[in-house]
Amino acid sequence: MEFKHLCLVRFKEGVVVDDIIQELTKLAAELDMIKFFGWGKDVLNQEALTQGFTHVFSMCFDSAEGLAACMGHEKHSAFAATFMAALDKVVVMDFPFVVAKPAPATA
Amino acid sequence: MEFKHLCLVRFKEGVVVDDIIQELTKLAAELDMIKFFGWGKDVLNQEALTQGFTHVFSMCFDSAEGLAACMGHEKHSAFAATFMAALDKVVVMDFPFVVAKPAPATA
Repeated sequence: MEFKHLCLVRFKEGVVVDDIIQELTKLAAELDMIKFFGWGKDVLNQEALTQGFTHVFSMCFDSAEGLAACMGHEKHSAFAATFMAALDKVVVMDFPFVVAKPAPATA
Repeated sequence: MEFKHLCLVRFKEGVVVDDIIQELTKLAAELDMIKFFGWGKDVLNQEALTQGFTHVFSMCFDSAEGLAACMGHEKHSAFAATFMAALDKVVVMDFPFVVAKPAPATA
């Protein structure tokens, strides 16, 4: 079962979000324990539902130990300081991911 | 590109979460436009990070139209009323999902 690290964020005004995403993508490419990285920007903009959050970042690990190794890595620490300083609000969830309906097989 | 519907929730006290998850799993199995359904429960319990949210539910669709068709389906409406009544707090994000580091191929 994979272990997920999920962040919902709203960035401070003036933050160049593309730069942050580029740095995150670089970090994910460099750290082997990060098995998957994806992100999205809410497009429905229903404030009552999003509570003001705008972006989702999702990383997958083989286990909670993989996440811990990532969090403890100096490259993550260096990035995290910049990242957290750019945020207006954030929620982070860490969980083993249960697949209840698998995606259909693709060619 | 897949379209994701993500919910972070905290349930009201007394709610039988397993029942809700079972109903959601049934709904996902019944509705063809739901291409994937997964969920997780935060295990690190760092209140400063989770903001009190405990569970994540993630559904995937082929497109925003797939999501809209699901939201408009009577089976979803029937479930949504029960679901929302069981929640203490909720954030919902809807977004095209950008895969920046794909998962390694598995056998």
